[in-house]
Amino acid sequence: MTKPISKYPVPKLEELPEDIRGRMLEVQQKAGFIPNVFLTLAHRPEEFRAFFAYHDALMLRNSGLSKAEREMIVVATSARNQCPYCVIAHGAVLRIYAKDPQIADQVAIHHGKADLTPRQKAMLDFACKLARTPEAVTPADHETLRAHGFSEEDIWDIGAITGLFALSNRMAHLIEMRANDEFYLMGRVPPPPK
Amino acid sequence: MTKPISKYPVPKLEELPEDIRGRMLEVQQKAGFIPNVFLTLAHRPEEFRAFFAYHDALMLRNSGLSKAEREMIVVATSARNQCPYCVIAHGAVLRIYAKDPQIADQVAIHHGKADLTPRQKAMLDFACKLARTPEAVTPADHETLRAHGFSEEDIWDIGAITGLFALSNRMAHLIEMRANDEFYLMGRVPPPPK
Amino acid sequence: MTKPISKYPVPKLEELPEDIRGRMLEVQQKAGFIPNVFLTLAHRPEEFRAFFAYHDALMLRNSGLSKAEREMIVVATSARNQCPYCVIAHGAVLRIYAKDPQIADQVAIHHGKADLTPRQKAMLDFACKLARTPEAVTPADHETLRAHGFSEEDIWDIGAITGLFALSNRMAHLIEMRANDEFYLMGRVPPPPK
Amino acid sequence: MTKPISKYPVPKLEELPEDIRGRMLEVQQKAGFIPNVFLTLAHRPEEFRAFFAYHDALMLRNSGLSKAEREMIVVATSARNQCPYCVIAHGAVLRIYAKDPQIADQVAIHHGKADLTPRQKAMLDFACKLARTPEAVTPADHETLRAHGFSEEDIWDIGAITGLFALSNRMAHLIEMRANDEFYLMGRVPPPPK
Amino acid sequence: MTKPISKYPVPKLEELPEDIRGRMLEVQQKAGFIPNVFLTLAHRPEEFRAFFAYHDALMLRNSGLSKAEREMIVVATSARNQCPYCVIAHGAVLRIYAKDPQIADQVAIHHGKADLTPRQKAMLDFACKLARTPEAVTPADHETLRAHGFSEEDIWDIGAITGLFALSNRMAHLIEMRANDEFYLMGRVPPPPK
Amino acid sequence: MTKPISKYPVPKLEELPEDIRGRMLEVQQKAGFIPNVFLTLAHRPEEFRAFFAYHDALMLRNSGLSKAEREMIVVATSARNQCPYCVIAHGAVLRIYAKDPQIADQVAIHHGKADLTPRQKAMLDFACKLARTPEAVTPADHETLRAHGFSEEDIWDIGAITGLFALSNRMAHLIEMRANDEFYLMGRVPPPPK
Repeated sequence: MTKPISKYPVPKLEELPEDIRGRMLEVQQKAGFIPNVFLTLAHRPEEFRAFFAYHDALMLRNSGLSKAEREMIVVATSARNQCPYCVIAHGAVLRIYAKDPQIADQVAIHHGKADLTPRQKAMLDFACKLARTPEAVTPADHETLRAHGFSEEDIWDIGAITGLFALSNRMAHLIEMRANDEFYLMGRVPPPPK
Repeated sequence: MTKPISKYPVPKLEELPEDIRGRMLEVQQKAGFIPNVFLTLAHRPEEFRAFFAYHDALMLRNSGLSKAEREMIVVATSARNQCPYCVIAHGAVLRIYAKDPQIADQVAIHHGKADLTPRQKAMLDFACKLARTPEAVTPADHETLRAHGFSEEDIWDIGAITGLFALSNRMAHLIEMRANDEFYLMGRVPPPPK
Repeated sequence: MTKPISKYPVPKLEELPEDIRGRMLEVQQKAGFIPNVFLTLAHRPEEFRAFFAYHDALMLRNSGLSKAEREMIVVATSARNQCPYCVIAHGAVLRIYAKDPQIADQVAIHHGKADLTPRQKAMLDFACKLARTPEAVTPADHETLRAHGFSEEDIWDIGAITGLFALSNRMAHLIEMRANDEFYLMGRVPPPPK
Repeated sequence: MTKPISKYPVPKLEELPEDIRGRMLEVQQKAGFIPNVFLTLAHRPEEFRAFFAYHDALMLRNSGLSKAEREMIVVATSARNQCPYCVIAHGAVLRIYAKDPQIADQVAIHHGKADLTPRQKAMLDFACKLARTPEAVTPADHETLRAHGFSEEDIWDIGAITGLFALSNRMAHLIEMRANDEFYLMGRVPPPPK
Repeated sequence: MTKPISKYPVPKLEELPEDIRGRMLEVQQKAGFIPNVFLTLAHRPEEFRAFFAYHDALMLRNSGLSKAEREMIVVATSARNQCPYCVIAHGAVLRIYAKDPQIADQVAIHHGKADLTPRQKAMLDFACKLARTPEAVTPADHETLRAHGFSEEDIWDIGAITGLFALSNRMAHLIEMRANDEFYLMGRVPPPPK
Repeated sequence: MTKPISKYPVPKLEELPEDIRGRMLEVQQKAGFIPNVFLTLAHRPEEFRAFFAYHDALMLRNSGLSKAEREMIVVATSARNQCPYCVIAHGAVLRIYAKDPQIADQVAIHHGKADLTPRQKAMLDFACKLARTPEAVTPADHETLRAHGFSEEDIWDIGAITGLFALSNRMAHLIEMRANDEFYLMGRVPPPPK
């Protein structure tokens, strides 16, 4: 398909700074393709580096939240922001981390009615409130999370992931970032034998 | 005053990694104090570095937007998100860059009724829409900006600054970041003679 | 899986009136399984008959709207109402009618950013407005649809399908209707050989 | 008055299928006039039959809700949807069933401030929430109704009536259905002697 | 009926200052009863005087708006604020001034679908926008009114009446002001012969 | 600066009725300048008199609310209504009454995060709810205020001040009332020696 993946120019791999091209080849190695978020954000290398540094700091760190839970936050808040790229791409990642082919669709439609634990629902209630009406978050919301067993550092993680994808959703809407075809089926069926 | 500046632990300068402490001392040199956003976000050094790298990439780059215009975006969108730190701190910066003691209050209350050019109002209409209802931005909104003389790269700047402060506002709400007393009067009266 | 498919009692096939059981066996024959909407609404046979009579009158009639377009209306408005059953089940039907494995996810997330024609986007703009704020629909909205080539009868179809699923979404939320596992993958991969 | 009662063609009684004409003559016998919902929806006989079958199944069944209570649901939710036909016509029916000339106006304006029992207010709180934000209904809302003495079947009735008039309000807005003059005064003054 | 007409103490006529009692007797003479807004606001005589001075200045002055049009503004904006007292009492006055038994119900439900001229609908669009989201009114809204033939002074009247009833609706909600029984039927049937 | 202070004609002092001119000279004596609300509303002397009579009745009376608390209500609700004149002018008055140079900015941005007592936050929660969604105020909200020690008369004061500035904000938006330059700095720095 030849639909544009961004409103903005998309740099060619060979034109990119070494570190950025390296990162792309690494993810291509692992995933089998380069997610369009890499290609499209590379239009601005400095912002690219800052974005992925922030991303890795939050999504790869040791945390009281599992990797699947972190992706749930991305999917739930991006769905409330109606961001096609982030829901489709991170929905795929969530299916894989959770090893559950149904969870991403459920979370995207309505996390409160998804097959989640009460703890996870509380986490996503908080994240969606912070995502859509940040001014409405109160100390009582922190206490609700504490009552579900989240530590203060876990709450930072929930909030910061929500914040980072508040940025990411806005960039994706701004540049009309298109999701790769590969994401739609990832985690829904067993991967093809290598 | 001894009101806490964050819900989270605030590291001491001497405990911080060299690069982060250096950055703080530099800003202190220039401004006369360390804005609390530096002290409070330093609780997580990696995220600190990514945040300020993103910030500098956007706020210091050559752009079709003046520095005052970039601060207007921060003040207007942070006001819609009701973020005390960002409105007070960036309101001060806006007053200084714009050399106008009234502009920040006007923009925070209602940018549509502020003493701005039609071009600036269009810029802030776009930013506030992206800030509060990112899903509602359409290609027609880009065209409106183009008709006001903004280039595609300028529009990226408007959107990305809005996105970065979408993140920043959420962090500030999350950790209950408190604005330094110094900001309230900055740019309202002539600075004291040195 | 043994998760309940309704908050209310679900009648057994053998307990059901002949006409209702017949309908279920027919759909089972065709689809390979009985969608839960049949099983769960059968708790009230008279309402069941009225609902499906309405459904068939709208979804099976000759119309200026293709069957895929009618399902788009269901998916888009049900997504705005965050109705898990209707988005998942009708998303599957949409994929099959449209012969497009991506369309349902795109429409559910944001029909304005989906791979649709301007005519289809106008149709879904109207449907979503009627779904969420029916009081806001004006004669000008009808004229917009006419300008896209919709006849008055087509507009009735758009409105009535939106209305029927306004009812359906509310019933599904009310009884916590659960989507069958089969829907998640339908229309995403070629059907297994029979 | 000769104001149109629908944007769509209104069939003449003599052109209508026997069963539909029969139904109209029956209601005319009883009420003294044919409510416009019959005349206007008859433009599509199959949908007409389904709509009134659904209506009768809910509004005429034995229920834990009185007929007046069922009409309250119609009036309250139709008022939130700002539907002229349904508020005016069902307001009349509510006045008659409740034998109270003030109740319909009160419920249409603000059910929470009407002369109702706490049980009735809880019923209408639930109905209005389901009517306007169906995604927001939670199991806790069901429990609130149970605490007011509603059975599970009563709750189905509340929800289904709300759902049916979600459909009805949208049809009435779509076709600009006009209320009969007769409704305005019904139930406000003693009926004229026959 | 002995339902309370206010949450606050209601002064007895004989306890009231002369000017306030005089005003009440005058209205009683004319209307046949004392509207509860007089009795209930008299709890605070100074505010009573200011309120009715404002009321008279706007509702009795020579204006490009007819008295019926001024009452339409009250009914439409009070309905959006869901204020029982103001909708019921001013609905009665509107029926009488407009000599139209249907107009008040229509305006209260949805002014955009009422039997009004385009000029009147534009007036009420402006009033309802100012009533619910005053910050959203722009110079373009003034121009729309000018194009419908309203003078600048007429626009002041529209805005000021909207403003005064913004105050009045809030007072009525605050004190749970109850409408007199007499209002419900006023203007719906010919007045009884004297 | 020669920016207009109103969309409407502003009368000259010498053209004004004696009582109105007198009031203006009195305030000028005290404040050093005539706030624009006096000059601009004087376009309609009768409404001017009613407005300031109402204002004085509420703002000067003996009340359980301090003068600073009354101004907080004005600032908080006017900020939610995004009214430049009222936020800037009453922000100045609030700073002076509260002898606190930071409080007005904090309250305007987000009263829930301002340096206030829980009692004051409860007062402003109530006021902002009444200001923006008056229909949502319930008896439970009164009870919350009572639990914070407010008397019934205090609650009337809170509600009536909110109501008066609901009117005032709408007038200021309507006529594009501009704040005097003097307000921006009042209460932020010690007054100049006389």
